[in-house]
Amino acid sequence: MIENIKKKVLNMTDKLNQIKTWLNEQQLDVAYFSDFHSIAYLTGFESDPIERVLALVVLPQGEPFIFAPALEVEAVKSAGWPGAVYGYQDHEQPYQLIASHLQEHTTHMANWAVEKGQLTLDRATALQTAVPAAKFVGDLTPVMVNMHLIKTPDEIAKMHQAGLDADRAFEFAFAALKEGVSELQVMAKLEYELKSAGVAGMSFDTLVQFGAHAAEPHGDTAANQLHRGDLALFDLGTVYDGYVSDATRTVAFQTVSDHQRDIYNVVLEAQLAAQSQVKPGMTAGELDGIARDIITKAGYGEYFVHRLGHGLGSSVHESIQIATGNDLVLEPGMAFSIEPGIYIPGDLGIRIEDSIVLTETGADSFTHSSKELRIID
Amino acid sequence: MIENIKKKVLNMTDKLNQIKTWLNEQQLDVAYFSDFHSIAYLTGFESDPIERVLALVVLPQGEPFIFAPALEVEAVKSAGWPGAVYGYQDHEQPYQLIASHLQEHTTHMANWAVEKGQLTLDRATALQTAVPAAKFVGDLTPVMVNMHLIKTPDEIAKMHQAGLDADRAFEFAFAALKEGVSELQVMAKLEYELKSAGVAGMSFDTLVQFGAHAAEPHGDTAANQLHRGDLALFDLGTVYDGYVSDATRTVAFQTVSDHQRDIYNVVLEAQLAAQSQVKPGMTAGELDGIARDIITKAGYGEYFVHRLGHGLGSSVHESIQIATGNDLVLEPGMAFSIEPGIYIPGDLGIRIEDSIVLTETGADSFTHSSKELRIID
Repeated sequence: MIENIKKKVLNMTDKLNQIKTWLNEQQLDVAYFSDFHSIAYLTGFESDPIERVLALVVLPQGEPFIFAPALEVEAVKSAGWPGAVYGYQDHEQPYQLIASHLQEHTTHMANWAVEKGQLTLDRATALQTAVPAAKFVGDLTPVMVNMHLIKTPDEIAKMHQAGLDADRAFEFAFAALKEGVSELQVMAKLEYELKSAGVAGMSFDTLVQFGAHAAEPHGDTAANQLHRGDLALFDLGTVYDGYVSDATRTVAFQTVSDHQRDIYNVVLEAQLAAQSQVKPGMTAGELDGIARDIITKAGYGEYFVHRLGHGLGSSVHESIQIATGNDLVLEPGMAFSIEPGIYIPGDLGIRIEDSIVLTETGADSFTHSSKELRIID
Repeated sequence: MIENIKKKVLNMTDKLNQIKTWLNEQQLDVAYFSDFHSIAYLTGFESDPIERVLALVVLPQGEPFIFAPALEVEAVKSAGWPGAVYGYQDHEQPYQLIASHLQEHTTHMANWAVEKGQLTLDRATALQTAVPAAKFVGDLTPVMVNMHLIKTPDEIAKMHQAGLDADRAFEFAFAALKEGVSELQVMAKLEYELKSAGVAGMSFDTLVQFGAHAAEPHGDTAANQLHRGDLALFDLGTVYDGYVSDATRTVAFQTVSDHQRDIYNVVLEAQLAAQSQVKPGMTAGELDGIARDIITKAGYGEYFVHRLGHGLGSSVHESIQIATGNDLVLEPGMAFSIEPGIYIPGDLGIRIEDSIVLTETGADSFTHSSKELRIID
């Protein structure tokens, strides 16, 4: 199935038919999608309903339907959804309405597949109450994970476009560096330049960190000011037609110490080794080990406190974990980040990241900004 | 309890003691928090773990602990958490580790309260597997909702600060309007000005919509260009020290037609009526009705396709729903938006929104930008 997915651009009908086939194989009556990312992937309609209820119901026979907040119904239709769409007003009981619409579409509703990685306990209970016969025996989360795992050529092309925008973002970022500027100012400037150039949005909150602040790998962009001799870390991503980029560069401002350069070169060696050696058939754990061994042998293993990478595609964190002990076998078409880092509290943080798609022969990177240590004047 | 919360600024110990008291009252053994917003509210440590596991465990007796990704452990400590914090590496099994740490803290672990509005079915299953004795009988979601419902003076002060930034944002937005500019360019410009001025972030994706595009109330900021005679809608919010603003203004560009002005004035009348008449003791449904009746009587009821408002505080969508049929009685200290709109597909969209905190005497608005129809040259 995965091989088949890889070789063509799936359209909406293909995707829904794959779900129908799976339902028939599993002898399930109802597929209930509640994650808006899944609904976007399957139907082309993308909208975060926040606390409202948005659902796509697919049946092994019979027509699928979308259930949406009333204010989204027009948008569902204009996104090209050809099937039924039912709206509800904020004062109505959504799960009771879903149950009654379901009865219009099918008489079989005992065995359900739901997105167990997204559906919360209270919503599951509300659904169960509205459809007392329902048993949530199937899990759609791994089904969607598998559909996302291998990228189509169309998806890969979009991710390359997003990568080009990330490369531009780094240039805007470097150009914004000057003595005394704050992390927030640099973030604002680079996002402004990008959005002015037509980039629709960032794929996550842009991270700009100067000096010792970069030793917090999951910290925030803040008011810290840049000074001569600081390292500046940029972790950023853009969105192109629903697909994301994610890349990190660390540069020196005006001058660099031997200590900074030595550690930078360890991270760089680890990043380049992993990116040049990754091959189909290798496990995710083995790939993590290539980078981790280099950092450990250099004496900084305790300061590399996260996995080497993560999957990405239509969102910035997909299921692939490039982490110690993960036996997932890497295949052509998988897309993930390679982002080793060394974080020494109170001193510095350095991370270098490209996101890549795996081909038969190795990594094809979405970003191309130089990874050699740059000193920005 | 609610009155008590209102009258003072709760510190971490107070909040955790409230949870302990509740556990004792409910005869529960374990409170398991997994929503990072709840953990931030209770402990001061704020970080979105994305797909990693972050948990706060509170026990009726015994010491609470935080379980976090290894790369967050230092940040938990520096946020001022005085208790135990346990980290896990990406290759470890988090729920098994939580189970073993729990055994170090208590011997009673049968009756759990979890956040049923946030905990997903798969994570609940993983937790259940790691602690076979656990029964998820209690729900922490309404407990947290109630803790958030009535704002403290400290929270209200922060929301007023966020409101001032939203007012500044509108001025930046209006100044960026010119013939042919795109929605994205205006969004980029106003966010740049705000961030340059030190505003840490937006509370949601800024919405800029011109002309007929504004008829999609949950559409996106896009490439549409502004032309003379268009209405321009701005729905935006900022974050100040963890608290958010949320406000909407609609302005005319260079000139306005009688048709546009007539509909604008209907929305304005509805907004002003609701905001001036809201009082403690009124229900949320009654408040919605004040605005909805005005729009309906003017003949546009079918084009007001969403509730009148929603709660806000440390996030932009809290539990309060100002919606038809909601019997929630409004109390002093509740904070919510008042945002009527009229959306005529293919023609125009107009929404006017302030967010307010209810006092003994009525609404205290966080934003103060004029709501009279402005024509921007």
